[in-house]
Amino acid sequence: MFKISSMVVAFSLAGSVSLVFAQALPTTAPAPANNPTTPEKVELGKMLYHDPRLSSSGTVSCASCHNTMLGGEDNRAGSVGVEGQVGGRSAPTVWNSAFNEVQFWDGRAASLEEQAAGPVTNPIEMGMKSWDDVVDRLEKIEGYQKAFKKAFGTESISKDNATKAIAAYERTLITPNSPYDKYVKGNKSALTEQQVRGMNLAVETGCVGCHSGPAFNGPGMFQKFPINYNGYLEAQYDFKKDKGLAEVTGKKEDEHLWKVPTLRNVALTAPYFHNGSVKSLDKAVSLMAKIQLDKKLSKDEISDIVAFLEALTGEFPKQEMPVLPIASGITFNK
Amino acid sequence: MFKISSMVVAFSLAGSVSLVFAQALPTTAPAPANNPTTPEKVELGKMLYHDPRLSSSGTVSCASCHNTMLGGEDNRAGSVGVEGQVGGRSAPTVWNSAFNEVQFWDGRAASLEEQAAGPVTNPIEMGMKSWDDVVDRLEKIEGYQKAFKKAFGTESISKDNATKAIAAYERTLITPNSPYDKYVKGNKSALTEQQVRGMNLAVETGCVGCHSGPAFNGPGMFQKFPINYNGYLEAQYDFKKDKGLAEVTGKKEDEHLWKVPTLRNVALTAPYFHNGSVKSLDKAVSLMAKIQLDKKLSKDEISDIVAFLEALTGEFPKQEMPVLPIASGITFNK
Repeated sequence: MFKISSMVVAFSLAGSVSLVFAQALPTTAPAPANNPTTPEKVELGKMLYHDPRLSSSGTVSCASCHNTMLGGEDNRAGSVGVEGQVGGRSAPTVWNSAFNEVQFWDGRAASLEEQAAGPVTNPIEMGMKSWDDVVDRLEKIEGYQKAFKKAFGTESISKDNATKAIAAYERTLITPNSPYDKYVKGNKSALTEQQVRGMNLAVETGCVGCHSGPAFNGPGMFQKFPINYNGYLEAQYDFKKDKGLAEVTGKKEDEHLWKVPTLRNVALTAPYFHNGSVKSLDKAVSLMAKIQLDKKLSKDEISDIVAFLEALTGEFPKQEMPVLPIASGITFNK
Repeated sequence: MFKISSMVVAFSLAGSVSLVFAQALPTTAPAPANNPTTPEKVELGKMLYHDPRLSSSGTVSCASCHNTMLGGEDNRAGSVGVEGQVGGRSAPTVWNSAFNEVQFWDGRAASLEEQAAGPVTNPIEMGMKSWDDVVDRLEKIEGYQKAFKKAFGTESISKDNATKAIAAYERTLITPNSPYDKYVKGNKSALTEQQVRGMNLAVETGCVGCHSGPAFNGPGMFQKFPINYNGYLEAQYDFKKDKGLAEVTGKKEDEHLWKVPTLRNVALTAPYFHNGSVKSLDKAVSLMAKIQLDKKLSKDEISDIVAFLEALTGEFPKQEMPVLPIASGITFNK
């Protein structure tokens, strides 16, 4: 798994704070030793990622909730799975997920490969009874037989290879060249004055304590949320109902632990927080400062930080639409 | 609207029947005078076509049911709209729909432009309350303001322009160079012997009485279905429950009138018939011969015709995935 190198936050004591540590987003993501990225895997993974036939109803693909034509998610509080079921967490963006140390909101998956296996058989997401059923479907389609063979060799349609291919594709979903990246690389006019103010304020306020590194999602895999909190806020935002990592582990010490989400393209991924209960980025910034850092930001300060966050919107790579293979006269649904 | 030129079916009386009339699929589709196809409209139309934010839930785009990565539909009997609602008819393919004289299964729309307006505000499909609401959403997104301006000029976001752009995009969704097209153009080895037998049999049997022309969907816009029918068949296939065009017009004479669907890429679009009640192409061919032409085909004859129909699968054009514009921190859903 990719490890984000630890970074040093340096403050210029003689005046305004600056992000001298700043790192541009890498344009490629490292792959694990047992799943080197190859064009054949990426091509197969792109097909599988966009194929709704990986769901029981034939209507929900990975891309339905993690939309690669949008900000890598669905702009909803809860995503919609098979039979119109709505999930309890807001879909995280797939863009730059290769730079997360752990996956899912609660960080329960240690790799993109492990993550990719989950939603397919989740009854309220893609609803397949088992991966064996998925493999059965794929084996009926000659085009998939060929694509798996190209990517992995003979007799190779399996859960393991399907999730490897999806992960390989996801490692190509990187959005470099944001205004921030251009600024970091030396183009000082790439950010507006307000965005520079917002950047410095994000350091001063303490946002970068958790949101740092090239993807603004580290160091550290997990953080507790919410911290400075009360019943009044809970009545509005419901942040504590979901216990985060503890929902998986059942451990008291994991309650309300969450993966630190990337801030890359955050302007594109409303609504915000794990339950999507906050619609605007202004409000999200104000709440994060209050709840996590016990700081009250002024309207102007919020605007400045939001302007900076908008500078983290990158360039989306051109992608060719996959042509999904179909077996003659075959359907998997009523 | 595009008129398919009438064609002459010629039988070679001195031996096997041949399709001397045969026409390859055109590689471009003519556009109506009030909506000439331009690259800017096509680009905008591609965005709108793939944008789930044109639905109330933000989860259903035109492409959800008419999937351009698949055979132009969803391989389901009934498509799934917002809130998991399932429609009563099987989504027709969008590929080559530019060559239909009328649109929808019941032919109630006279153009692609008119068709495009329908599903967006259909409560069980995309569920928007009104096109005014759609326009409101689009106007909030700067990227759409720019794309409409490029395609239509200033102050131009409207239902009329949105449906024109979608129709312009759909006119580019053509699948030429099927084995049949290559054969028609002179490559006599493009079809197998079985496929040639199937082609001749489709003429002899009478299939081409309705399914002829380059898209195998004319001449004639409407046909009555089912004809030679009984209670035993109805118990199995439920073809008569839906009254076709009469559901719209309320006229007795329109009962069970249907648009003649294209046979292009029919091998990719299971399940079959307006209600998707038939899963395999073999069965569809056998039922059509029996019900429409009062002929009982042998197993070999059915196989030959199916082999011919498989030769109507064309080449799918390479498409770049649209990058859908997003306004900072905006969501249209809870």
